[in-house]
Amino acid sequence: MAVRAQSSFFRRGSLLFCYKSGLFPPAGGGRHGRLVRRFSSDPLTVCLQRKGIRRITLNNPNKRNALSLDMIQSLQNDILHDIDDAALRVIIIAAEGPVFSSGHNLKELTSEHGRDYHAEVFNTCAKLMTSIQSIPVPVIAQVNGLATAAGCQLVASCDIAVASDKARFATPGVNVGLFCSTPAVALGRAVPRKVALEMLFTGEPITAHDALLHGLISKMVPEEDLEEETTKIAQKICQTSRSVVALGKATFYKQMAKGLEDAYKLTSQVMVDNLSLKDGQEGIAAFSQKRKPLWSNS
Amino acid sequence: MAVRAQSSFFRRGSLLFCYKSGLFPPAGGGRHGRLVRRFSSDPLTVCLQRKGIRRITLNNPNKRNALSLDMIQSLQNDILHDIDDAALRVIIIAAEGPVFSSGHNLKELTSEHGRDYHAEVFNTCAKLMTSIQSIPVPVIAQVNGLATAAGCQLVASCDIAVASDKARFATPGVNVGLFCSTPAVALGRAVPRKVALEMLFTGEPITAHDALLHGLISKMVPEEDLEEETTKIAQKICQTSRSVVALGKATFYKQMAKGLEDAYKLTSQVMVDNLSLKDGQEGIAAFSQKRKPLWSNS
Amino acid sequence: MAVRAQSSFFRRGSLLFCYKSGLFPPAGGGRHGRLVRRFSSDPLTVCLQRKGIRRITLNNPNKRNALSLDMIQSLQNDILHDIDDAALRVIIIAAEGPVFSSGHNLKELTSEHGRDYHAEVFNTCAKLMTSIQSIPVPVIAQVNGLATAAGCQLVASCDIAVASDKARFATPGVNVGLFCSTPAVALGRAVPRKVALEMLFTGEPITAHDALLHGLISKMVPEEDLEEETTKIAQKICQTSRSVVALGKATFYKQMAKGLEDAYKLTSQVMVDNLSLKDGQEGIAAFSQKRKPLWSNS
Repeated sequence: MAVRAQSSFFRRGSLLFCYKSGLFPPAGGGRHGRLVRRFSSDPLTVCLQRKGIRRITLNNPNKRNALSLDMIQSLQNDILHDIDDAALRVIIIAAEGPVFSSGHNLKELTSEHGRDYHAEVFNTCAKLMTSIQSIPVPVIAQVNGLATAAGCQLVASCDIAVASDKARFATPGVNVGLFCSTPAVALGRAVPRKVALEMLFTGEPITAHDALLHGLISKMVPEEDLEEETTKIAQKICQTSRSVVALGKATFYKQMAKGLEDAYKLTSQVMVDNLSLKDGQEGIAAFSQKRKPLWSNS
Repeated sequence: MAVRAQSSFFRRGSLLFCYKSGLFPPAGGGRHGRLVRRFSSDPLTVCLQRKGIRRITLNNPNKRNALSLDMIQSLQNDILHDIDDAALRVIIIAAEGPVFSSGHNLKELTSEHGRDYHAEVFNTCAKLMTSIQSIPVPVIAQVNGLATAAGCQLVASCDIAVASDKARFATPGVNVGLFCSTPAVALGRAVPRKVALEMLFTGEPITAHDALLHGLISKMVPEEDLEEETTKIAQKICQTSRSVVALGKATFYKQMAKGLEDAYKLTSQVMVDNLSLKDGQEGIAAFSQKRKPLWSNS
Repeated sequence: MAVRAQSSFFRRGSLLFCYKSGLFPPAGGGRHGRLVRRFSSDPLTVCLQRKGIRRITLNNPNKRNALSLDMIQSLQNDILHDIDDAALRVIIIAAEGPVFSSGHNLKELTSEHGRDYHAEVFNTCAKLMTSIQSIPVPVIAQVNGLATAAGCQLVASCDIAVASDKARFATPGVNVGLFCSTPAVALGRAVPRKVALEMLFTGEPITAHDALLHGLISKMVPEEDLEEETTKIAQKICQTSRSVVALGKATFYKQMAKGLEDAYKLTSQVMVDNLSLKDGQEGIAAFSQKRKPLWSNS
């Protein structure tokens, strides 16, 4: 078993910091607390929460932000930490460096590690991917650069994905004899089958333009606008009610797994329940009274 | 309970009119019987059937064609009226004014109305949406302007959707504390998940161009060509056999809900049955004899 | 019952030829053994395997490469022949002439042939389509020209589809009173519902551009580059491990038929199994040692 990075979170004023065994929060961390110098003790992920937006940055650019077991767990911790905090409204997953994420760390997949360890890697990764969809707040991938294999799976698993026109996406496992079968779960549900299979069989990357064309991302912007545009979407979400979004997100995934009639049975009931929520009543009342709603987020 | 509009239908020559508690059919109704003046007693929907094409127009532009319970029932009545009439071949749903439909009437969703009434609204709406797919003739949405919430759901629920380049689509319920969970049933089955969720979480509209890119509509045309292009598709359908189209439409939705092997089992049998239809035999015979087929439509 | 063409295969050096009751392999057959003269005894399909790539060419352009029962069986034979041959890595399905395939031979669907014969036609065809996805090697459609009805279904059923910008796709069965219900199984799973239904209800063709936009094909190239680009994809596949691709392909279709959690359960286990494959271990080892992998393909 690898040594696991330990995370701890603390607040400073209205900011939530994630503190790990490194120099964080940085003194000269810039607008988003971005680390400006790197040390071997730098945390694998950097997590900063402000005004409802939790920004998690994959922070191991020297290793192409590989989803090592440690990285997966660090990311999972940052996502799940105090997930029911009413102040948390949306999560952005971004990355330092030219590679968003290169997927699993192949050094962890050599035969020396054994089947049980391999199983732990893939099970933990699958848990991360499904938890993105089961948590109560939206998760946005902000992609600049290359996302491959499980890195591409991470993008495909997010609720929303915004990418710069420089981003590219690939599932090249086949080149190292490890077919991207787990990434294919997310990819195959995001893009048309032929696009998924051409990517999976050839390992060749697709451009951000093609990713948008085929539904892997929902928005493509110039590189210099990427953070701003992603933040805009997050801020828009911050203006809505947390409880309403939570109900909506959970219901969306539930109904999509059903047939049409059952989906309507479920959602018709959910609409009635939504109207009974404190924020459901407030929203309709505010609309009638032509004023801004005041969300209780509960 | 709201007062329900009463509809009645009558024929004048080859035209089928839908008469409601208003001034319809109008004296100066133009090419499609379009009402040129508006009265409080104007019908919520205007329905005109000619040469196989039933055109239903949402006719409450002052209320942004809101899908009030009355409007839903009026639309449902117009769709289902004499649905087995062999002369009816295709339905077009269009709208008066700059808004195709703004979705549910929020005044019906205040807490004063109570859960039972809310449930009636959503159940009736879901019934309308599913019935569009269960009736034996194709339904085409002709969209010029904005379609939001249940209005967007209506477009997504039609078999075919043609929009002008001015059209826009949104699911902004989240802004009034009512997540578009029922619209998401249709939207989530029409566009890629990330596009659906960005629309649902932010409430922001997408353009007709993006709606085409992502499959919410099947054709985009300049505003001035919208009616002509939609009518062309309807006329093309009128040249085919009603019974063949009815079998094909029902089978399409049935097989899409199955796995691949079961889908082929069902459809292979349907193809054999289709060839046994009077119009199946006529079609093949006409093709062999290099003549135009004469459909019995039965 | 129609007379069936008999196929036999033989090797000449490293080439695998498919010999049928015709003049094949041709003396002046060109780069891909393409027939340059036509005889009534020409084989319905021409099959040539070289360097891992089996190229099957629909070879009845005078009959618009109609998928007669004979043609279906010839194609099926060529696909399934010695399918476990380790030297076979990928199959390309191409066509002679301006029509890729016009679908079923309507002469076989007249009432004289009877229901049992019709059932045999559709069942055999469905078997061909599903077998494309169940065999262990990828199948690429190379489309130049028009693919209609079951011809369009064939393209939609392949794992990958590359088309020239001249290609067009249609499901015009409705025009001859035979709704394209079996093609709709493949088409409806390849493109958005509204696009599929507009094609099915009107019979109108879509362009290669729209086919790419909507996911029916994964790549569009200028006509003069079609064969080269398709071959490039095939060659890329030839550089990977056969056993890894076989496991990946089978797993892809299995997991796509499951819900998200079950899909991850299956694929996480498959990833572990993949790493235990001889070529799984070789791939990871070669990557670690910064050398090219040497596949055993087993």
